[in-house]
Amino acid sequence: MQTSVAIIGAGPAGLLLGQLLHRQGIDNVIVERRPVAYVLGRIRAGVLEQGMVDLLREAGVGTRLDAEGIPHDGFELALGERRVRIDLAALTGGRRVTIYGQTEVTRDLMTARQAAGLTTLYESENVRLHGLDSESPALTFTHNGDSIRLRCDYIAGCDGFHGVSRQSIPADRLQTFERDYPFGWLGLLSDTPPVHDELIYSSHERGFALCSMRSRERSRYYLQVPAGERVEAWSDDRFSEELSRRLPSDVAGKLVTGPSLEKSIAPLHSFVAEPMQHGRLFLAGDAAHIVPPTGAKGLNLAASDVGVLQRLLTAIYHQGRTDLIPRYSQTCLRRVWKAERFSWWMTRNLHRFADAADFDERIRQAEFDYFLGSRAGLTTIAENYVGLPYETLA
Amino acid sequence: MQTSVAIIGAGPAGLLLGQLLHRQGIDNVIVERRPVAYVLGRIRAGVLEQGMVDLLREAGVGTRLDAEGIPHDGFELALGERRVRIDLAALTGGRRVTIYGQTEVTRDLMTARQAAGLTTLYESENVRLHGLDSESPALTFTHNGDSIRLRCDYIAGCDGFHGVSRQSIPADRLQTFERDYPFGWLGLLSDTPPVHDELIYSSHERGFALCSMRSRERSRYYLQVPAGERVEAWSDDRFSEELSRRLPSDVAGKLVTGPSLEKSIAPLHSFVAEPMQHGRLFLAGDAAHIVPPTGAKGLNLAASDVGVLQRLLTAIYHQGRTDLIPRYSQTCLRRVWKAERFSWWMTRNLHRFADAADFDERIRQAEFDYFLGSRAGLTTIAENYVGLPYETLA
Repeated sequence: MQTSVAIIGAGPAGLLLGQLLHRQGIDNVIVERRPVAYVLGRIRAGVLEQGMVDLLREAGVGTRLDAEGIPHDGFELALGERRVRIDLAALTGGRRVTIYGQTEVTRDLMTARQAAGLTTLYESENVRLHGLDSESPALTFTHNGDSIRLRCDYIAGCDGFHGVSRQSIPADRLQTFERDYPFGWLGLLSDTPPVHDELIYSSHERGFALCSMRSRERSRYYLQVPAGERVEAWSDDRFSEELSRRLPSDVAGKLVTGPSLEKSIAPLHSFVAEPMQHGRLFLAGDAAHIVPPTGAKGLNLAASDVGVLQRLLTAIYHQGRTDLIPRYSQTCLRRVWKAERFSWWMTRNLHRFADAADFDERIRQAEFDYFLGSRAGLTTIAENYVGLPYETLA
Repeated sequence: MQTSVAIIGAGPAGLLLGQLLHRQGIDNVIVERRPVAYVLGRIRAGVLEQGMVDLLREAGVGTRLDAEGIPHDGFELALGERRVRIDLAALTGGRRVTIYGQTEVTRDLMTARQAAGLTTLYESENVRLHGLDSESPALTFTHNGDSIRLRCDYIAGCDGFHGVSRQSIPADRLQTFERDYPFGWLGLLSDTPPVHDELIYSSHERGFALCSMRSRERSRYYLQVPAGERVEAWSDDRFSEELSRRLPSDVAGKLVTGPSLEKSIAPLHSFVAEPMQHGRLFLAGDAAHIVPPTGAKGLNLAASDVGVLQRLLTAIYHQGRTDLIPRYSQTCLRRVWKAERFSWWMTRNLHRFADAADFDERIRQAEFDYFLGSRAGLTTIAENYVGLPYETLA
């Protein structure tokens, strides 16, 4: 079996890359360890930066997104009873984010890929990478009981934090940077109208809470919980009671509760692997970096990596620009680290740390006093939230 | 002995307050533990915010400042060989800082106080505060061998971090917040032309360095050194060699060295005491809070406290507004904490911390990549450096 670009992982990053390459006439095959239903069942992010929306349109999957996605011109920060709206559009010259679930993005990309007749090999097991330092790398795996060897020119590792791609780079060639946080997010999805028409990030003395949404009928709420907390300890009632306590009272009064469709706890983690390229393997998205979800940067960062990788591969196939290969990692990492910074800043300042020194707690309050009281400060929050400009390869 | 306002400390804060009160017709006496020569011999800050310059003019001591002070419309951040100018004037609508040594400010205020015939009791020993909770507080101390009781309406504690004022507030009424840094600043003063016409804050892998000045002929240079370092270990030659290594090479090439007039090591410390008022005692400046010198906020923060205290006392004496007293502390602290935040941010990001995790080091780099690459980010640095607006008492 042979293709130009072998993509590992059929999540939104791999699917988006496949579609973008296809539209540039670059042949690709996606290899995915999980079944379709599992990929579509994952509840993930739901806030798309303008840059990602543009890329999805470029990939030919903008129709349903444009019809059903909800543009948000702002979001709120709640500090106890105080509510401050970050007017994204006014602070960034009209830029905004779009509410559209990751699951919907994945579904649209799957449909487009199927319509284009492109190959996705789900339930591929024991994926191994070969010849990364050579000019003819390959993947081997088993699929439907067959042992397959997929020869290719390049490999895109879009298989997430736990995937095989990053692990295939020799340990002595990779430097990793990480930070754990002493808490996680307990998320609850329900078919109830969102409590507010924009997102509310609430910093409360009892802990952080986030009122998010996937659509006008589907709410997604989160609560900061200590690391090691068990989801079984949280009935739907306990969740909504705690959520109400952590929201400004006028917001809490409007909360509509309903049975949870899903409830789970995700740990918070910052992680970056450098470089993001080894020989003919390129890492994109969670395979190379993880951000804590405060700030909604994870999926968007995967998209900007894919944007760079698509431009690189197009330049290689159409113009023979293999000289650009060494620039991939540094180009991606410039934006990655800025997003890591913003996600860390939002996480540090919106959550309560049980072990925070009194000085740090006052500095945390001073961060908001300054940044929310200054137009320049507000603009730094807004321009990071809508997404910093995509970096160019040159 | 009797006065309206007894001021403890004849540093720039106490002298400025005395002069401002005098011009409002409010009688005051300053009590100072040290002799004149000691106060004038202290080498301190040299970067004045616009707000402080305005207050000095209001106090009637603007003439020499306006003639000899050097307005700076910008300063530089050096990151290794990269130099980035923070254009204060362009980013803040024309605001700037003025280079004028704290020693000169003190001298001008002393001269004005003497001309006005106001009392300053230098070399006053064993200063004690009495009756802070009563309507008739007093100071007792010995002066020229006499035991003196100075009765007053209010006491202003402008006697610095180690002074008696803050220590006279019952411990259970005061909350303190602090942060130590694992390094100090080794400073060198010399009669040599400054290496550059604006200040250069240099973040280098060997450690932080600052090229500052007191005038066009007098340079003030600083080097980050480990906590516990002894000044005797640093000859003038060793100092200038190390300084050269930490500056961009084009800057280092212009360095003019000369014998040091003064050389000393100051530890870096963040400290805030809350509240800044107890009964009829008001704390101002270092008596209530300390910032690390990165960002040049210490003297300026003392001036903004004095500005608030002057307005409060004027409102009390001219309009009977004793109801404003409880607002003093919160009014000052809003600005104090923002300045603590900025000083902490500058300190954390410009210095090297021996124990910094790899992740923190990358975040530090990302802070500069983002803030120096964004106009909003640059503006946050500029507007803090020139000085945030003075808070109003109302």
